Amino acid sequence: MNYEIIARDVKADSFQMAGLPEKIRNEALKQIAHDLKTSQDQIFFANKKDLAKAQSDNIAMPIYNRLIFDAHKLSDVLSGIQDLIKLDDPLFRTLFRRQLDEALTLVKVTCPIGVIGVIFESRPDALVQISSLCIKSGNCAILKGGSEATNTNRALFDIIRRAGLTAGLPDGFITLVESRAGIDELLRCHDSIDLLIPRGSNQFVQYIMENSKIPVMGHADGICHIYVDKQADIAKAIPIIMDSKTQYVAACNTVETLLIHKEIANTILPLLKSAATEKVTLIGDTATCKAIQCAPATEADFRTEYLDYILSIRIVDRLADAISHINRYGSHHTDCIITEDAAVADQFMSNVDSAGVYQNCSTRFADGFRYGFGAEVGISTSKLHARGPVGLDGLVTYKYKLFGNGQIVADYAEGRSTFNFKELAIETGRNG
Amino acid sequence: MNYEIIARDVKADSFQMAGLPEKIRNEALKQIAHDLKTSQDQIFFANKKDLAKAQSDNIAMPIYNRLIFDAHKLSDVLSGIQDLIKLDDPLFRTLFRRQLDEALTLVKVTCPIGVIGVIFESRPDALVQISSLCIKSGNCAILKGGSEATNTNRALFDIIRRAGLTAGLPDGFITLVESRAGIDELLRCHDSIDLLIPRGSNQFVQYIMENSKIPVMGHADGICHIYVDKQADIAKAIPIIMDSKTQYVAACNTVETLLIHKEIANTILPLLKSAATEKVTLIGDTATCKAIQCAPATEADFRTEYLDYILSIRIVDRLADAISHINRYGSHHTDCIITEDAAVADQFMSNVDSAGVYQNCSTRFADGFRYGFGAEVGISTSKLHARGPVGLDGLVTYKYKLFGNGQIVADYAEGRSTFNFKELAIETGRNG
Repeated sequence: MNYEIIARDVKADSFQMAGLPEKIRNEALKQIAHDLKTSQDQIFFANKKDLAKAQSDNIAMPIYNRLIFDAHKLSDVLSGIQDLIKLDDPLFRTLFRRQLDEALTLVKVTCPIGVIGVIFESRPDALVQISSLCIKSGNCAILKGGSEATNTNRALFDIIRRAGLTAGLPDGFITLVESRAGIDELLRCHDSIDLLIPRGSNQFVQYIMENSKIPVMGHADGICHIYVDKQADIAKAIPIIMDSKTQYVAACNTVETLLIHKEIANTILPLLKSAATEKVTLIGDTATCKAIQCAPATEADFRTEYLDYILSIRIVDRLADAISHINRYGSHHTDCIITEDAAVADQFMSNVDSAGVYQNCSTRFADGFRYGFGAEVGISTSKLHARGPVGLDGLVTYKYKLFGNGQIVADYAEGRSTFNFKELAIETGRNG
Repeated sequence: MNYEIIARDVKADSFQMAGLPEKIRNEALKQIAHDLKTSQDQIFFANKKDLAKAQSDNIAMPIYNRLIFDAHKLSDVLSGIQDLIKLDDPLFRTLFRRQLDEALTLVKVTCPIGVIGVIFESRPDALVQISSLCIKSGNCAILKGGSEATNTNRALFDIIRRAGLTAGLPDGFITLVESRAGIDELLRCHDSIDLLIPRGSNQFVQYIMENSKIPVMGHADGICHIYVDKQADIAKAIPIIMDSKTQYVAACNTVETLLIHKEIANTILPLLKSAATEKVTLIGDTATCKAIQCAPATEADFRTEYLDYILSIRIVDRLADAISHINRYGSHHTDCIITEDAAVADQFMSNVDSAGVYQNCSTRFADGFRYGFGAEVGISTSKLHARGPVGLDGLVTYKYKLFGNGQIVADYAEGRSTFNFKELAIETGRNG
């Protein structure tokens, strides 16, 4: 397998994919849902092989659980596909239509990004979600899943590929990369792949970002904060902190650092200490260590994504210090303030430079499904293009179509013609 | 000057800049327009120094002309600022407002990108345009202009900076970099600078892209095409080709390669040859050389941005060949079809993978002013974020604000609560 050659072929097919009407893309999704259902035994059989291997390899429990693809997971992905079919077409949407002059009309219209490479963890349901999102948005997908899910991924891929081709998608609509070496080949394909979405460890995502000229969408780490303001409602604060830390400790939207206003520190810290029990290890700055018994937190702690039951704590003098800390140590992912003071919340949410800024709720809400996007391909901490959880919208771009009647620029530059800008009504149909 | 330290200070100020109300940003623009007008002698005096130096250095005429900053240029930039003031605020715009559940409201709202580094050619009017666009969009600007304009840039910068501070902008709203070495320092500031916009030669932009982790918006080259379909109206074709090639030969949106359907080649080529006269050198593939007298074009020619009075020509058998050629050799900038056949135009415009796809008009229309954006900071050939001419819209991003009342994810994950998605009306004001 030479993935540079394969990617070039996929690129060629991507132009055909971009032109497919909504009907064919939705038909393909229906066919895929149908075939996944009727071939479920084949999928479950493949998954059992992966699970047996995982067990004999003594794989960690959270990874094992994500690897499971059973009737419950199948039903989830099938209802995800049904939801996706119902969503409005993200393509051929006219964003504006403007007369530049008589018979010279500019139309800004959405189109797919093209070829998207997604490298994802050992979660077979992700393969179905990502490929469905790419089909709906008219993109060709090149997928590399975690090696623990090899058999399940291959089974799902075979079914999706066959169903898509039956429905009329071009040959290159989906490609599965099955070797680790394939990733390095993909990274060199900046002429063919338009976007990479890596999901996985900080180190892995950094590696991707540093070793490819292809634009990357995603996040390397998730150092999320909660700031407890002096006007916080303690009854809300403790459950939010505990949920943000423990509801799923390995997630990127889990809180790593707690900032507390000095005036409320002595009230909240003992309550937090009892709530944390043996489960969560609290570490803190000098002021924290005075208020409760805990290990000291170093400077490095505030830059660490634990992905574990550890919470670092710093006491701050004022709101501005909390904001500076977050903008300096954070990863611009999701940060929350707990306060009943709307003006303080406004200042926090305006000045914290993150994709998600929350008031009085768990950081764990940062997720495409919980935002009502149907599904997500990942969460972006970049400030360009898509930011935060990325659903269909993040998989499309736009182009400018200009329809003329022989106009040349010299006439405008030399005063024989003048522009006559006028916003026009947006018409339905492919040319707006 | 240590620009890494300066950029860190600018970053800190950018959060204050992001929170400024529209009124202050517009007041600053008014103050700048006022001060530029009242200090015009100071500017013209500085410009005369640059022009004298340019003359004694025997600088090329097009560069010399761009360097001129006279009463006419001043009047242009002042009317540009007035137009900008009138434009709707690009910030604090609510893109959607969605209830996730009772008292749990998600708001997607626009905000500035933050700190933008712009490296631009020796055109002093660009300094005014770029800084105005950054102020209107709440971004801090770090500017490096071409060295030929050193004195004019310094004069403009001093006036703009003083006026902005008077109106209440933070100290770091604008920074001028005055040494070539400063560029390399800026390239290392990926923690402080959110976006780089380099304008200049292909080689220079490539250098920037390859030597920084900061996202880059712009284009390295502009290899634009015109495809003359068999259903072309020749009376439109010749003027469009000549305008696209010669109206401003050094621009990125100038045509470099002409593709011609074989059925119309013998009709159009002799007409083109007479129109080109001595001014434009035509070079072509074998079939072209048979139809008219011209030098042969090599494979390398089709990958070359001439920025000169040279036009390469290839004759193709069918539309699909023209599309493949453009997607393979082009730079995804601006490409045009000349045809009276709407279905052929639709196929071309849908399948050509470029920021601008045109029918029957000059490629030279690819420009922020001609698109009615008021001004542009550059033209992007990237497919993420902004594509094509980039105006105010390309200088903003968005964040998600989530307003809760103590909600935690465990309640939803464990079935005690269920999401209750509902689109809400968009309210005016900063929190949507």
